[in-house]
Amino acid sequence: MRVTSYDRNGTTGVAVKRETDWADLGSVDLVEVLNGVHADKVVSAPALDEGTVKNAPPLARPGKIICVGLNYSDHTDESPYEQPDYPTLFPRFTTSLIADGAAIIRPQVSKDLDYEGELVAIIGKRGRHIPKDRALDHVAGYSIFNDGSLRDYQFKSPQWTVGKNFDGTGAFGPHAVSADELPAGAKGLRLQTRLNGQTVQDANTNDMIYSVEDLISIISEAITLEPGDLIVTARPRGSAWPATPSFT
Amino acid sequence: MRVTSYDRNGTTGVAVKRETDWADLGSVDLVEVLNGVHADKVVSAPALDEGTVKNAPPLARPGKIICVGLNYSDHTDESPYEQPDYPTLFPRFTTSLIADGAAIIRPQVSKDLDYEGELVAIIGKRGRHIPKDRALDHVAGYSIFNDGSLRDYQFKSPQWTVGKNFDGTGAFGPHAVSADELPAGAKGLRLQTRLNGQTVQDANTNDMIYSVEDLISIISEAITLEPGDLIVTARPRGSAWPATPSFT
Repeated sequence: MRVTSYDRNGTTGVAVKRETDWADLGSVDLVEVLNGVHADKVVSAPALDEGTVKNAPPLARPGKIICVGLNYSDHTDESPYEQPDYPTLFPRFTTSLIADGAAIIRPQVSKDLDYEGELVAIIGKRGRHIPKDRALDHVAGYSIFNDGSLRDYQFKSPQWTVGKNFDGTGAFGPHAVSADELPAGAKGLRLQTRLNGQTVQDANTNDMIYSVEDLISIISEAITLEPGDLIVTARPRGSAWPATPSFT
Repeated sequence: MRVTSYDRNGTTGVAVKRETDWADLGSVDLVEVLNGVHADKVVSAPALDEGTVKNAPPLARPGKIICVGLNYSDHTDESPYEQPDYPTLFPRFTTSLIADGAAIIRPQVSKDLDYEGELVAIIGKRGRHIPKDRALDHVAGYSIFNDGSLRDYQFKSPQWTVGKNFDGTGAFGPHAVSADELPAGAKGLRLQTRLNGQTVQDANTNDMIYSVEDLISIISEAITLEPGDLIVTARPRGSAWPATPSFT
């Protein structure tokens, strides 16, 4: 199932792809839709009037947005970091989310706005201490993310938080697909980022050091994962940084 | 005004201190109460039946919990870090919150559970690009926080996130006080942490490198602050780490 969220004059709703149109389910919970809760409504729902809506992030207020760094060895090799033997986790706050296609506004205080194309896992089931062999049962679906980063702010202190959280720098969506549409753990998928039509990142999710099931198992050793939480699984090689330390 | 949140059989509510008891306002928004929205109800509200409730965090699901590190020079001096010339910001997720007086459970995977007593500013008014001279207008009130930390997990990767986010390690409250009850910016307050009756941290909020108004102004250069967001303003010297690298 392919699902999207939309904004119609400030009210958000969820739509599900049918053969030739989108079924407008109205204001339902996207995670419930991915979990199949509203499957019986898809056939009979009215078609989404695409002319009256704009894209919204699939989830506008996730309880947690846990981002992963240093999760592709080709990127760690080009960075100043040693590869840690534990996932590098940092947060996004919901104020940093923006819909696909909306403009990411570079703040006046920085010229160092950079892109990072990434796979997102959307948690569908609550859990703590989730064993790796049951981790994928906790994934409702997948989406994509541009983890837009202000590099100078990212490195102003030992913690990256502020450089990853400027308002509206995290483009999420437009679509989410239910886990059953993809290979288990979203493995073996090609992940490409294009900048003005030019491919700048081209990787395979098989190259992630910590797979989706690794991440769920390791994070949930510490932290309860809840429906709607996001795990943003890190960038491969190819952003401007560190190849180009600063846009000037 | 002194305000607390309570849990009665799984339902939360807010109470306000009167001369000899607490006025039970029921399920209202704590930030609204701190902002004075419900002031007219305090005199006539029924007294809180303290025997039927237990403490709850003043806010259970803040939109953002932005924690500050390296904000007292006596602590930075004892740490392995250089003092950065920008606040060091890291997140807590809401799953890490716990009420005052509830047991913080040390996870089986670590022996390195440590305390950090801190001042919290509770945001009362939305804003971005907030100038320092108006920053305190955005504070609804203040509270206290034990930023319980798993030191070994904190340093497993370059980012501290996981060591600061084990479930139920962030004790918040029990009370919040409206900003008008305290000196501007909560300056000049003595901040003490006691471990089994022994004072282990004893500082003055004047010693913060970045004051509450500094933090609001600097953070909001990047991030919209919203009502209910928390800024947890960092620990002074005196936690077990780094004096004792590990409890053994």
